Amino acid sequence: MSKRNAFYAQSGGVTSVINASACGVIEAARKHPDAIGTLYAGRSGILGALREELIDTGKESAEAIAALKYTPAGAFGSCRYKLKGLEENKAEYERLIEVFKAHDIGYFFYNGGGDSQDTAHKVSQLGEKMGYPITCIGVPKTVDNDLPITDTCPGFGSVAKYIAISTREASFDVASMAETSTKVFVIEVMGRHAGWIAAAGGLAADEETDLPIVILFPEVAFDQQKFLAKVDEKVKEYGYCSVVVSEGVKGPDGTFLSETGQRDAFGHAQLGGAAPVIAQMVKDNLGHKYHWAVADYLQRAARHIASKTDVEQAYAVGAAAVEFALAGKNAIMPTIVRESDSPYRWTIGEAPLAEVANREIMMPKEYITEDGFGITEACRRYLSPLVAGESYPEYHNGLPRYVRLKNELVPKKLKEGFEV
Amino acid sequence: MSKRNAFYAQSGGVTSVINASACGVIEAARKHPDAIGTLYAGRSGILGALREELIDTGKESAEAIAALKYTPAGAFGSCRYKLKGLEENKAEYERLIEVFKAHDIGYFFYNGGGDSQDTAHKVSQLGEKMGYPITCIGVPKTVDNDLPITDTCPGFGSVAKYIAISTREASFDVASMAETSTKVFVIEVMGRHAGWIAAAGGLAADEETDLPIVILFPEVAFDQQKFLAKVDEKVKEYGYCSVVVSEGVKGPDGTFLSETGQRDAFGHAQLGGAAPVIAQMVKDNLGHKYHWAVADYLQRAARHIASKTDVEQAYAVGAAAVEFALAGKNAIMPTIVRESDSPYRWTIGEAPLAEVANREIMMPKEYITEDGFGITEACRRYLSPLVAGESYPEYHNGLPRYVRLKNELVPKKLKEGFEV
Repeated sequence: MSKRNAFYAQSGGVTSVINASACGVIEAARKHPDAIGTLYAGRSGILGALREELIDTGKESAEAIAALKYTPAGAFGSCRYKLKGLEENKAEYERLIEVFKAHDIGYFFYNGGGDSQDTAHKVSQLGEKMGYPITCIGVPKTVDNDLPITDTCPGFGSVAKYIAISTREASFDVASMAETSTKVFVIEVMGRHAGWIAAAGGLAADEETDLPIVILFPEVAFDQQKFLAKVDEKVKEYGYCSVVVSEGVKGPDGTFLSETGQRDAFGHAQLGGAAPVIAQMVKDNLGHKYHWAVADYLQRAARHIASKTDVEQAYAVGAAAVEFALAGKNAIMPTIVRESDSPYRWTIGEAPLAEVANREIMMPKEYITEDGFGITEACRRYLSPLVAGESYPEYHNGLPRYVRLKNELVPKKLKEGFEV
Repeated sequence: MSKRNAFYAQSGGVTSVINASACGVIEAARKHPDAIGTLYAGRSGILGALREELIDTGKESAEAIAALKYTPAGAFGSCRYKLKGLEENKAEYERLIEVFKAHDIGYFFYNGGGDSQDTAHKVSQLGEKMGYPITCIGVPKTVDNDLPITDTCPGFGSVAKYIAISTREASFDVASMAETSTKVFVIEVMGRHAGWIAAAGGLAADEETDLPIVILFPEVAFDQQKFLAKVDEKVKEYGYCSVVVSEGVKGPDGTFLSETGQRDAFGHAQLGGAAPVIAQMVKDNLGHKYHWAVADYLQRAARHIASKTDVEQAYAVGAAAVEFALAGKNAIMPTIVRESDSPYRWTIGEAPLAEVANREIMMPKEYITEDGFGITEACRRYLSPLVAGESYPEYHNGLPRYVRLKNELVPKKLKEGFEV
């Protein structure tokens, strides 16, 4: 096998463990200096390839790369930028080939969610359709846990852990206050279409710790009367209640509980503000004093309380991507394969990018209780191992020490720039 | 000294370490079985005394009491209920004396903030004014860090740590996204009148980790033009910016940026929603894409990332309250006395309740940078030791194991109930 360079990029919303995947890719690549020359990282994701802004990861020390495992967010910068189809914007693909050729890039590792796996899939077709053979491996990442085939998506377990813990902690708080003050606490969590993150709020309660938690899933059309009746029932029984509401909850007519009307580059509605809507509804109809929180980026950036399972899986899919590429595989994405729930055992599998791209997996019906407001035992069996274990970063002066890389760009070789 | 029973109660908004103070009180009391008979805890704070709902803490195992040190919120229930003056509502004080007499209560430990220390002060006057001598010691607690005399208030250091970490993590996130997406992240934090918690957001950036952070303090009248100019400057320099906004920020005319118009039992305005106001303002005027979070209860309940210093101080003031009482002191509150910043050294002091009650301490001018949007080195020297150290709870199945007590009520001895 002749030695080629490689390109790695981070795409879409970042997570607290996407850098653990980067660490896996880079450390695995460094084990094969015979096969992989320089591993370039794209500055701001695929934009780095289009603009020929390539970071030389070889300039980073082994210590700095190892520290990525404990550092949240995207160390090389991410982007929300979706390549159009080959027919719609051929110029972009021609540019990619120019850049790849100029830097002798033969391996392409793309770390992202459904949209990004679609990009990876398109890039994998460059050989066949445009005569530039490139080995293309997707690396899964999304807090939403909505990729198909893989048992879970790196990034999700840590958000799930954060939301489960935060819901437990806030529930203890409201339980203390309920006699004379706040009776209903509402926490809004991410998840545009799939309720996986909201479901994690259900883990706050378990056999040891009985807590009244009402979950609003995007998979269940919001029914105000039923919701208020459920909150009323919980407050009557426990004296208080916590509500976990997904940002993506919609009414029967399909409109979001709170939609700002803005859309991101992928055309997704940008949401925020379901929590205050729900809280006010409770106040107006049941008269309870409320508090509400919107976790937003805090949930997906919370490396301080990342799931150890998640960190290990994030690292493993990164490392596996390199091993798959060197084994001659192409147009696939490493997956997490669950072998057993308890004790939890998993291995790395693979899925064709063509089957991964642009498919969102919702919560299965059997994971949501019949009343639509809770998680079932089956859901709990699925979720529990994903939040298991702590993976604490190192602290300095009371704060986690997160690494920042040098991110040195290599000199450009092409005369032309590229406007995106 | 004749043996008497004792009463302990938690008051006002709870914190992630108020139970560490309870642990200190209870463990210290248990060391003096010769002097303190039963230690009763009020169910829902002072209401437990008025209603004769007394929890027998003697029924709890040593292990359960020790676990309080790792459990957030108020294990016995708290309340927002302020005793009126002796003249205004004598019946309440007569009732307290009835209950104290019936249960031979000679020690009163009241764990709370400024309003609660006022209550403790009033109770301490029962001897002189109503002929029922009782030893009354306040135990400081408030996330707002606004009590006078004490160097800091237990509860604050942990919120400060949470906000500093969350701001750092979210800043890493927005830095990754800024090229094509979110450029401004806004986090709303607690602090009605004092900006101590907002100031803690400034710790997210330090010598090792340069981050663009703009802080909006309640002590500084909000000036929209200056604020937007500051954000614009940061985004131009860094490509992104994080804004830490206190819930209590007011415009030059004294109105809150976002006031819901509701008031709690102490007459304080109930706030929430400054973050979306600020975020929309940035969008409308500078055009940047934004995300915002409201941490709300998550910040004060976040025992999973409590400050070790804070936990130790919370425990120490609880234990000291008992020792002070047994040493014959009365109408005082243990305080934290700072002996040096670095290395950080502190001891326990004392303050008369009369000087603590109903006084709020704002951020000193020299802690806020001249432009009004940041913290000075002096502020950093003050804050840093308070967030130092981690005090991780035990985990089970991926979640912290927080204790719930039996909270067994002792039989009532009085025939009459009491309506509050």
